[in-house]
Amino acid sequence: MTNFSESELDDIRAESARAYELDRAHVFHSWSAQKQLTPMTISRAQGSRVYDGEGREYLDFSSQLVNTNIGHQHPKVVQAIKDQADILTTINPAHVNAARSEAARLVTERLPEGLDHVFFTNGGAEANEHAIRMARLYTGRHKVLSRYRSYHGGTNLTINVTGDPRRVPNDHGDSGVVHFFGPFLYRSEFAAQTEAEETERALHHLRRTIELEGPATIAAIVLETIPGTAGIMVPSPEYVQGVRALCDEFGIVYIADEVMAGFGRTGTWFAFEQAGIVPDIVTFAKGVNSGYVPLGGVVMNNAIYDRFADSPYPGGLTYSGHPLATASAVATINAMAEEGIVENAAKLGEEIVKPRLEKIMANSKHVGEVRGVGMFWAIELVEDKDSREPLAPYGGGSEAMTDIVGKLKAGGVLPFVNFNRLHIVPPLNITAEDLNAGLDVYEEVLTNADYS
Amino acid sequence: MTNFSESELDDIRAESARAYELDRAHVFHSWSAQKQLTPMTISRAQGSRVYDGEGREYLDFSSQLVNTNIGHQHPKVVQAIKDQADILTTINPAHVNAARSEAARLVTERLPEGLDHVFFTNGGAEANEHAIRMARLYTGRHKVLSRYRSYHGGTNLTINVTGDPRRVPNDHGDSGVVHFFGPFLYRSEFAAQTEAEETERALHHLRRTIELEGPATIAAIVLETIPGTAGIMVPSPEYVQGVRALCDEFGIVYIADEVMAGFGRTGTWFAFEQAGIVPDIVTFAKGVNSGYVPLGGVVMNNAIYDRFADSPYPGGLTYSGHPLATASAVATINAMAEEGIVENAAKLGEEIVKPRLEKIMANSKHVGEVRGVGMFWAIELVEDKDSREPLAPYGGGSEAMTDIVGKLKAGGVLPFVNFNRLHIVPPLNITAEDLNAGLDVYEEVLTNADYS
Ligand SMILES: Cc1ncc(COP(=O)(O)O)c(C=O)c1O
Ligand SMILES: Cc1ncc(COP(=O)(O)O)c(C=O)c1O
Repeated sequence: MTNFSESELDDIRAESARAYELDRAHVFHSWSAQKQLTPMTISRAQGSRVYDGEGREYLDFSSQLVNTNIGHQHPKVVQAIKDQADILTTINPAHVNAARSEAARLVTERLPEGLDHVFFTNGGAEANEHAIRMARLYTGRHKVLSRYRSYHGGTNLTINVTGDPRRVPNDHGDSGVVHFFGPFLYRSEFAAQTEAEETERALHHLRRTIELEGPATIAAIVLETIPGTAGIMVPSPEYVQGVRALCDEFGIVYIADEVMAGFGRTGTWFAFEQAGIVPDIVTFAKGVNSGYVPLGGVVMNNAIYDRFADSPYPGGLTYSGHPLATASAVATINAMAEEGIVENAAKLGEEIVKPRLEKIMANSKHVGEVRGVGMFWAIELVEDKDSREPLAPYGGGSEAMTDIVGKLKAGGVLPFVNFNRLHIVPPLNITAEDLNAGLDVYEEVLTNADYS
Repeated sequence: MTNFSESELDDIRAESARAYELDRAHVFHSWSAQKQLTPMTISRAQGSRVYDGEGREYLDFSSQLVNTNIGHQHPKVVQAIKDQADILTTINPAHVNAARSEAARLVTERLPEGLDHVFFTNGGAEANEHAIRMARLYTGRHKVLSRYRSYHGGTNLTINVTGDPRRVPNDHGDSGVVHFFGPFLYRSEFAAQTEAEETERALHHLRRTIELEGPATIAAIVLETIPGTAGIMVPSPEYVQGVRALCDEFGIVYIADEVMAGFGRTGTWFAFEQAGIVPDIVTFAKGVNSGYVPLGGVVMNNAIYDRFADSPYPGGLTYSGHPLATASAVATINAMAEEGIVENAAKLGEEIVKPRLEKIMANSKHVGEVRGVGMFWAIELVEDKDSREPLAPYGGGSEAMTDIVGKLKAGGVLPFVNFNRLHIVPPLNITAEDLNAGLDVYEEVLTNADYS
């Protein structure tokens, strides 16, 4: 916890007032109607805490965009950035650089054998862009299959691969993407009553989609192992195994989008490990360096690598394998390993988050379901438990959700919100004490919530 | 100039040997056949100099990928990165942050009035992605026009907007992009004999392309003000003005891609200034912070901004307006202004590069043309001056080019090469002495070159 002196507070307030004014005058914000915004200022952050423009403290239960897996301002990563800044910040990707090489070693070391090479990008969207390109060139096929209720990035191709309402205004019918329904028992599209039924029917649906689209036209299936922003719907291991089997059967490249679920978020280094499968391509970003410097990447299996062994890969970007970014990844991965941060996520998720959210669900009329694993949990808010009607429409907000968010913030928590859901996604190294303190606020607000 | 001690040299050599080994084992490189690479290691850099894995020094005449406009490791920018690293590295773009606000102010301050808002991205490709999205949504039209001999990025959409051979393996006919020919008198596609003819015919060709594609289908023309990697073909001011007039006539959004030409490279803050026009959208990256932290952005005019005032903009990315990246932009722009770096580029270009390259051309049988402005120059290498046959085929290399590059490096210069061209693109704040020393090497190598 930081205690600001009065003069520090004065500085923070003055700096933040000016930042707000300039923001409204000159900054264009993502996913927003620009003149309807009254954004919150974040002036400082430390560990699991952020501070607004008045210096007020919040427990960060969002990890921002679910990227600060090791919390804010981790001293080892800050130091690594400063050390690398003193040596070499940037270099043409064509040249070899020590920071990039070591980051590539550390990333591939944590992945199954056969996934041995990394192509670094600046973020998750670019990682999926290049993964899809590799799959298309490797297979000689064009179509990409992805699920409804998913997010894969903001570039033209990846927003079209995305299966959420933000895709619609960007859909020109030109992306070669086909969407299918994934498993989500609470809102089953398959009239399933049990997890086993949901898995079986969702796999049947995917098989029929592949067969009728024509396997010979399908380059890749892009799948968040656990869909993140779309709702943290943890699939059964059998579903993930079934997708792997369908990809094998039809010669389709399995791209596991681990941008949000990867690097410890689910209590293992990568979420797909929990289903015991090996994807053909893994994309990552966010947790790889907690976003301290923009970084993402693609790891491809050796067969795909070999496709570009003697014939050039037609893709690139100026900052691929950026020294400052990769140096921060080296420090992050090492700190996560040394400090047992991934194990901590698994333990706190199982021992604290799960039971406490189940209790909240039992005592709140508006909590329809809680689900998740590790430090990756969703609270599904509904009008009432019978109708399961979302407390805000799909793709929108509601007064009830705004009210809940306001109360959580007033209680000192910075929440992650999407439509009718609250996600519990704090840093993986949050202390049990802070985690419980934050969950107290959720419990208080949700237990008392009544919007009927 | 850095003089390494023997023990520093030992460290650099050991670190670089390991970096090379890990690179070949784990790093996937852009635009390359992975197993045919023997990449150079860059271990250190300072100002206009870089050092390889043996600690050998080179004058950096590439600015890497033409991004280190203020040279390597500028102390003010390094310090700003370290200071911001101590305060706050990353934050959700939804929140206001002081570094981002100030960077937005500084970028828009350098642009004409009416271009008042910035959407920050991680690099140039993403900037063009979002610029095109804004233009499509603003106009309600789909097609994008761009020129052959251009580069706009490595994502699926931007590589298709690109007009160079790297597009071809990525072209699925699904991007809605139409390519036209731009002015390039030395290799005129219009049988022009004079600059005036070239301008007039290239504008006529563009008008006819617009008319026959159907103006009502065209959202945007995306144009590097001066095509960079594609060859630094400086257009006449009349051509740029003519494009502006065509966009006005047909309600097409003029997107100026200033990713490489912007932020001082041409001797003015933005290249379009030299033609006295105002684009509707400006995209930037590279020079904005010399690439010390990945950063790019889109500045849109107020009419386009207003399109998203009350209706959400359907695009975003996790690291939009990243604090560490924008803090480095603030320091870079301020240092460039304080140190007169843009003026230096204009002066050295006119007083040193231009006359010296003209002399080299006069004395070398293989230099067909030299062209450029500021610190942005191309040397066009040909079999002989009459045939103008390129010394390497379009899209490829040749023994002659490899030989020239080897000799330049042996002479202590790190060159920028593309097909049959050498680009003279050092940092903008290179000293006259270093610039002359580097040009001595080009003069020596090119004057003596004979591949007939
Ligand atoms: C699963 C997933 N994939 C891809 C992305 C895109 O990453 P970025 O915003 O870094 O481009 C995100 C971002 O939220 C994500 O959650
Ligand atoms: C003119 C131009 N536009 C766009 C880009 C793409 O920028 P980035 O590599 O940062 O995505 C480049 C990169 O070289 C460029 O030169």
